[in-house]
Amino acid sequence: MMSPEANGRSAPLLVGLDIGGTKIEALLVDQQLNVWAQARRATDVSHPDNLVVSAIAAIDDVLAQAHADRAQLTGIGIGIPGQVDAVAGDVSLAVNLNLKTYPLGKVMSTRVGVPTFVENDLNIAAVGVYRWLQQRESVANVVYLSIGTGVAAGVVLNGRLYRGSHGMAGEIGHITVDLNGPPCNCGARGCLETYVAGPAIVRQALGSVTFDCPDEEVHAGHVYQAAQTGDEAAQAVVQNVSRHLSLAIQTLVMLYDVDKVVLGGGVAQTGDAFLSPILDELVQLRAQAPLFETMLPADIVTLLPAGYNPGAWGAIYLAKEAVWD
Amino acid sequence: MMSPEANGRSAPLLVGLDIGGTKIEALLVDQQLNVWAQARRATDVSHPDNLVVSAIAAIDDVLAQAHADRAQLTGIGIGIPGQVDAVAGDVSLAVNLNLKTYPLGKVMSTRVGVPTFVENDLNIAAVGVYRWLQQRESVANVVYLSIGTGVAAGVVLNGRLYRGSHGMAGEIGHITVDLNGPPCNCGARGCLETYVAGPAIVRQALGSVTFDCPDEEVHAGHVYQAAQTGDEAAQAVVQNVSRHLSLAIQTLVMLYDVDKVVLGGGVAQTGDAFLSPILDELVQLRAQAPLFETMLPADIVTLLPAGYNPGAWGAIYLAKEAVWD
Repeated sequence: MMSPEANGRSAPLLVGLDIGGTKIEALLVDQQLNVWAQARRATDVSHPDNLVVSAIAAIDDVLAQAHADRAQLTGIGIGIPGQVDAVAGDVSLAVNLNLKTYPLGKVMSTRVGVPTFVENDLNIAAVGVYRWLQQRESVANVVYLSIGTGVAAGVVLNGRLYRGSHGMAGEIGHITVDLNGPPCNCGARGCLETYVAGPAIVRQALGSVTFDCPDEEVHAGHVYQAAQTGDEAAQAVVQNVSRHLSLAIQTLVMLYDVDKVVLGGGVAQTGDAFLSPILDELVQLRAQAPLFETMLPADIVTLLPAGYNPGAWGAIYLAKEAVWD
Repeated sequence: MMSPEANGRSAPLLVGLDIGGTKIEALLVDQQLNVWAQARRATDVSHPDNLVVSAIAAIDDVLAQAHADRAQLTGIGIGIPGQVDAVAGDVSLAVNLNLKTYPLGKVMSTRVGVPTFVENDLNIAAVGVYRWLQQRESVANVVYLSIGTGVAAGVVLNGRLYRGSHGMAGEIGHITVDLNGPPCNCGARGCLETYVAGPAIVRQALGSVTFDCPDEEVHAGHVYQAAQTGDEAAQAVVQNVSRHLSLAIQTLVMLYDVDKVVLGGGVAQTGDAFLSPILDELVQLRAQAPLFETMLPADIVTLLPAGYNPGAWGAIYLAKEAVWD
């Protein structure tokens, strides 16, 4: 991180917020994208007004860490789950945030006195992922597939965020795998999410896999650990999850024809235990058809490093482009 | 059609060619997109050079019909199956055309003496479909799903053709529905195409459905006819096909978040017997989840009128934009 003193108390700053159902991550950078501070706060989902209070507290946290003050802020970018009207800054259908319709952009602009730009969390994370990739190699078309409590993708096509007609492009978590499958939070049955999201992985393991902790504390990482230490039931769950994820990746690649599919999210942070069985499935798929060899080459799938927060960085780029570029 | 005499023998003209595995359709228009002539020729797939001969014959057919000559041609647009390098005009992997790699754009430009622009058939058809829709309503994001001998989609996003990294975006015919499913022409197993393409529909009906003609002459339209006249085995096939197609439409909509999904191709020309059971399946899907209500509204699916050739029109727009705009 930069020494704030080196830049002085007058340097213009940007803050990026990644607002999730349980925590808000904040990132403070200067005009050259040097990181001045990072912070994490619990999300208060009791009421949208309280959500705003916790978001502002996260901003004040990073400002305090950097010995900077609100007057230096020139823009705020926010990534948040749900359907976002990016022009108006309105958020709707953010079920996990207890938020039906809320003018988040306007409220934050008014309260903090700084222009605020809001985008759907996966859309904005795709921008963060794209910028991260661009520093390594030249890519035009990228999908970011996040596997966590939910499953969704964000898409950058021809170097630009592709939002779709409702800002919902990349909703792969709710394609139907089996019309008679398990019930999904969305109301439908057998959505991809009911097979490969964190809670679905745990559901498939409980009962057949023995864990050291109470059932309520088991998370997907425990299932991958059990599989690696030789538990056959856990290995079967991991294989099933990996097969569904390899087909999801195939679907993304066949439809978007991208240079890269980047995997991230809470479940993906399990690292190689998560990635390796997916790559094995893709090797088998690729061997079947020349079309898959062309469109699904061996290096197409990459794991996002755990230390990089694509949502907070994407929010920074959103604010930066709107304010400075 | 315009009276050629009204425009004179000096009017600049454009030709659009839709080259398929069995036939070439040609369309001749003037600068105002008035249709001067249309023609159809068998495709000679014995050798790429003979393919060029039949393509040029189709051009001469429309010119002769319109009492025009080659000197009036200012551009040729071509839609053709396979992987197309649109900049170079090279075509590769066009299996049904017996064409591995061929510089079609250069050869046609040289032989006819007119700039020639080549694009993948589904990509170019998507442009034709988008322009057709634009004359009726304002749309930004459109998928054209063609169900014929093969199954594939072309995509217009934010008003522009989206090609993807290999020009192969929209290859939904080869997403895997069942890893243990029927063998596909591509080499893999259980691709969507093996359930819903014309030959797959016939395959599922032969044996259980009785037809008036020899097995070799049965096509998908016969299966839909049998279903409509009450044949239960044919109805079961149609329901299975329609369910797979409704889920394919859902996948396209969840990933691309489009305003419209337009259905076309040989199988879709069966009309209401084809469309109606798909719409029934979508009604059931929509009732399950608010997300589907938002992204898959009742009017999202449209059938392309049988008289409109999106490939030939798309080829016209391709040539027009390159030459005149």
